[in-house]
Amino acid sequence: MPENEQSDDLHAMRHSLAHVLAQAVMKLWPDTKVTIGPPIDYGCYYDFLFKEPISDADFGKIEKEMKKIIHQGQTFRCDKLSPKDAKKYWKDLKQPFKVELIEDLEKNEGVKSVTHYANVGPKGEDTFVDLCRGGHLESTKEIPVDGFKIMNLAGAYWRGDEKREQLTRIYVAAFPSKEELAIYITQQEEAKKRDHRKLGKELDLFTFSDQIGPGLPLWTPRGTIITDAIEDLVKEKEAEGGYKRVHTPHIAKGSLYAQTGHLAHYKGSMFPPMKLDDGEEEYYLKPMNCPHHHQLFASRQRSYRDLPLRLAEYGHCYRYEDSGALFGLMRVRSLTMNDAHIYLTEEQFEEEFSAVIHLYLEYFRIFGIDKYNMRLSLHDPKELGKKYVDNSKLWLKTEEMVRGVMKKLGVSFKEVPNEAAFYGPKIDVEVWSAIGREFTLATNQVDFDVPGKVGLKYTDKDGTEKVPLCIHRAPLGTHERTVGFLIEHFAGHFPLWMAPSQIAVLPVADAHEAYGSEVAMELLKRGMRIEYMNATESLGKRIREGEQWRIPYLLVLGDREQQDNAVSVRNVRSKNQVTLPLQEFIQRTCEDIAERRLHPSIG
Amino acid sequence: MPENEQSDDLHAMRHSLAHVLAQAVMKLWPDTKVTIGPPIDYGCYYDFLFKEPISDADFGKIEKEMKKIIHQGQTFRCDKLSPKDAKKYWKDLKQPFKVELIEDLEKNEGVKSVTHYANVGPKGEDTFVDLCRGGHLESTKEIPVDGFKIMNLAGAYWRGDEKREQLTRIYVAAFPSKEELAIYITQQEEAKKRDHRKLGKELDLFTFSDQIGPGLPLWTPRGTIITDAIEDLVKEKEAEGGYKRVHTPHIAKGSLYAQTGHLAHYKGSMFPPMKLDDGEEEYYLKPMNCPHHHQLFASRQRSYRDLPLRLAEYGHCYRYEDSGALFGLMRVRSLTMNDAHIYLTEEQFEEEFSAVIHLYLEYFRIFGIDKYNMRLSLHDPKELGKKYVDNSKLWLKTEEMVRGVMKKLGVSFKEVPNEAAFYGPKIDVEVWSAIGREFTLATNQVDFDVPGKVGLKYTDKDGTEKVPLCIHRAPLGTHERTVGFLIEHFAGHFPLWMAPSQIAVLPVADAHEAYGSEVAMELLKRGMRIEYMNATESLGKRIREGEQWRIPYLLVLGDREQQDNAVSVRNVRSKNQVTLPLQEFIQRTCEDIAERRLHPSIG
Repeated sequence: MPENEQSDDLHAMRHSLAHVLAQAVMKLWPDTKVTIGPPIDYGCYYDFLFKEPISDADFGKIEKEMKKIIHQGQTFRCDKLSPKDAKKYWKDLKQPFKVELIEDLEKNEGVKSVTHYANVGPKGEDTFVDLCRGGHLESTKEIPVDGFKIMNLAGAYWRGDEKREQLTRIYVAAFPSKEELAIYITQQEEAKKRDHRKLGKELDLFTFSDQIGPGLPLWTPRGTIITDAIEDLVKEKEAEGGYKRVHTPHIAKGSLYAQTGHLAHYKGSMFPPMKLDDGEEEYYLKPMNCPHHHQLFASRQRSYRDLPLRLAEYGHCYRYEDSGALFGLMRVRSLTMNDAHIYLTEEQFEEEFSAVIHLYLEYFRIFGIDKYNMRLSLHDPKELGKKYVDNSKLWLKTEEMVRGVMKKLGVSFKEVPNEAAFYGPKIDVEVWSAIGREFTLATNQVDFDVPGKVGLKYTDKDGTEKVPLCIHRAPLGTHERTVGFLIEHFAGHFPLWMAPSQIAVLPVADAHEAYGSEVAMELLKRGMRIEYMNATESLGKRIREGEQWRIPYLLVLGDREQQDNAVSVRNVRSKNQVTLPLQEFIQRTCEDIAERRLHPSIG
Repeated sequence: MPENEQSDDLHAMRHSLAHVLAQAVMKLWPDTKVTIGPPIDYGCYYDFLFKEPISDADFGKIEKEMKKIIHQGQTFRCDKLSPKDAKKYWKDLKQPFKVELIEDLEKNEGVKSVTHYANVGPKGEDTFVDLCRGGHLESTKEIPVDGFKIMNLAGAYWRGDEKREQLTRIYVAAFPSKEELAIYITQQEEAKKRDHRKLGKELDLFTFSDQIGPGLPLWTPRGTIITDAIEDLVKEKEAEGGYKRVHTPHIAKGSLYAQTGHLAHYKGSMFPPMKLDDGEEEYYLKPMNCPHHHQLFASRQRSYRDLPLRLAEYGHCYRYEDSGALFGLMRVRSLTMNDAHIYLTEEQFEEEFSAVIHLYLEYFRIFGIDKYNMRLSLHDPKELGKKYVDNSKLWLKTEEMVRGVMKKLGVSFKEVPNEAAFYGPKIDVEVWSAIGREFTLATNQVDFDVPGKVGLKYTDKDGTEKVPLCIHRAPLGTHERTVGFLIEHFAGHFPLWMAPSQIAVLPVADAHEAYGSEVAMELLKRGMRIEYMNATESLGKRIREGEQWRIPYLLVLGDREQQDNAVSVRNVRSKNQVTLPLQEFIQRTCEDIAERRLHPSIG
């Protein structure tokens, strides 16, 4: 669930609405067992055990009942019960889940009393009671009656335990106004259309194979054009930034990851080892590239003159995510990371860390990402020696270094405790796609711990040996998540420089094939990626096909175009069509590609 | 050991020389135990168990003794002994290894007699007797007395078994003439200087880490420039050839490799599996890319219109080579393969297979490989169902298809039985480096088996479903072996387009720094890889440094160059120096790089 930034009022409204939902359901199906129902970032849900399954067809009925309750202006009354009385109350009502919850509260928290909230109807009668910690509106009347909508049903196990009862979860969207609800619903519909799993299949960008395994995407030829285009961009920007490219293997001995601390702090996310039977050590798939880059640093004598040393690699890492947690390209087991490690002195920190933040902003500009949010993830003193390396002084020092740079840069950020990497603080960047979906994309981390642990050192000006700091950075995260995000962000309408097919050539009829070939050859000579769609199918059908494949430009070539050495350009995204001389089209398109412009400039 | 093409005469000479070597050693150190001593492709060796260790310092003494024996013109007499008599003979001489050999001959081959060869001296006396199958010269006089040289000592276990005695192996180079021996020795010395492990370290191209593991090279920034340059070349050539690039993960479920036949035929070369503890299947590192590409083929409906479909990937495979077999970049455990799989109909076979052979020849031209040899590797009927898929008819048919194409192409090749891939015949290419070292680099294989096994199909013109053929091809083998070969082939003097640093800029003195910076900026603007060596060190020292790093051009910039807007270009390979206008230098160098010329054209 993303960060919840809703106000207290909104939270109370959504929480109150969950009570209203439960009350409505109990009125309609009195045999139902109730469980729990919290507010969420777009409304609320409630989990029920129904005697007979319900369906989407019942939503209208439930909403009608909910509106009735809202109109009644029911109030909320708090009752304190002893656990004993509370259990008796729910046992009498044949509500075993509530009894179980109270038993757990006794056992785990040793509570002496539990609060219940009763809805009080217009005649002063109790209409519905729930076990609850509170936080409601004064009256159900304050719930905007046209600001909510039942969205969908989902299965959910009681307490998330697959060995327990399977419940029905009812999701409700709830907003302060009808208009805000409408915006949310439109976004959801658009998001469904843009779902990267759906578009990825339609546009043949990537695939999964049951035989290879879940969470292991295969990039098709069209998808590889996109990842290669991103990689070319990155190589260019990193070359400008003084990075040096390297390549490292995908496995290493367990002893390496023991030394770096990955086995101590990160083993749960790693694939199990490969055990060689000749007495050689166990080998692991690398979960991160840093231990490998550290070995490259260590492969030669280093002096202060070599620093900062910026080693970059689109490195493939493997992380063992639970199969249930896998989600399209967003959560996978094989990750192609836009990785680099910058080895540097403390004096170089500000400049290097700032350069990384600037690189983020440059990428955001190129991809048209207007909304982003930087989070400074800090350690938690309680987890020192467990989740985090045990050096309070260095934690505070490096956190202050990062805070200082961010303030100096004037980039706004918020601080989040207990989210750091095990070896140091980091800046994570959340971005929002064109339709407002949120993704955590980039990361920029300081490491004050591992370089020393693995014995990295350089000779300083004064001849002494020192341990370098290390910045771990991945402005474009992984290919998997970046492409997943961009598919949804662009709704499959990639900028020309990334588009798998940039231009389709459509001669209107057989008579225009010769001119069509001529145009095609001209474009191919400039290295453009074209589809040639000859006139065996109707023009309308071919245009629809070009649109389905989200080819940015369709060139329609008929008598007039042939005569004038021109092209009629249909911009698939805007659906505008303009006619212009072939040479002008070529020149402007070459520029759009070379400049990596966000939108094709014609039509 | 590479193919032995020596004539019978040469073989007999080298074999006879091994007897001479053993006789000389026994004369000098009568307590020595003899074992075996075969001819090899440049001479012969013999393994001994010495009582006291010998060293290089003893070579002269042994050679002198050998020459004496040669001059005596000893003849070879064959004696047939019963195993019993033979064992007694060697027991009496206290030569236990010979006794063991005879016991094994009795046990394994059930021999009734064993042959011994006695050298007969000038007085008719037996000078030395060895257990031997024969194949000698008439007389030791026929051995060219100045055509041999003891090269080196090496440790070797008796019968290659590390639990048995460690023996001393004496290697002797032996050729028909003094001149041929001299050529061989020069080649060996050159080879030592060019050894890719030595140069790889000196030029900082790659490294290994004990902590990551043996056989797992890490490409440094300078090495990555070379692999990236090769990859860019390959991408360009493959784009021209209609290949489409893909990316696939490095692991897959065991069931996939069971289905493809890899677990049945190839498991010994694979890393052990990773066993997930949640009941999911075992995962393996991929030993080849084909099973993954097959899954991409299978990810969509395919029709005859999609064929040939050429899927290309510089794919990383992992093979479990015994740690003792690992050798620099030549035999490794992680392989970056210049891989592609071409799915096609039988009618398309000739054209596609020929195009692959032409691609080989194009790469050989670019890398200046003049000497190569193509081998058609066939199945062995005796191994059907074991080493090879059990379909005699398809073996004969596809072997004939390959034979036919090769003959039509007019490329010479030789046929080698029992060297095919498990799924079909192949053409392997051996190449020779500039100093005559041989490498097996490229492969082009036909697969008539696996596509059917994994259910690949396409819809043909007539609407029926058919199974495609598959060509597996890797013209540039692996990055590891190709770069290893090229380091030795070029002695580290890479062509400009591949050189990690292309040009060094050396202002003669501080006064020329301004002009030096100007020249450097001009080169950087053209994307050239330069090193700027300022005048803090002497010019001589900087030139030596540039030579050590094998930077193709050193630009020396003094008063005259500055005044004339010129550069003095020192060609590091030829050591020639010429002065020419800066703009001419830039233009010619840009051309050399763009055309991927083998040698820098200036100086």
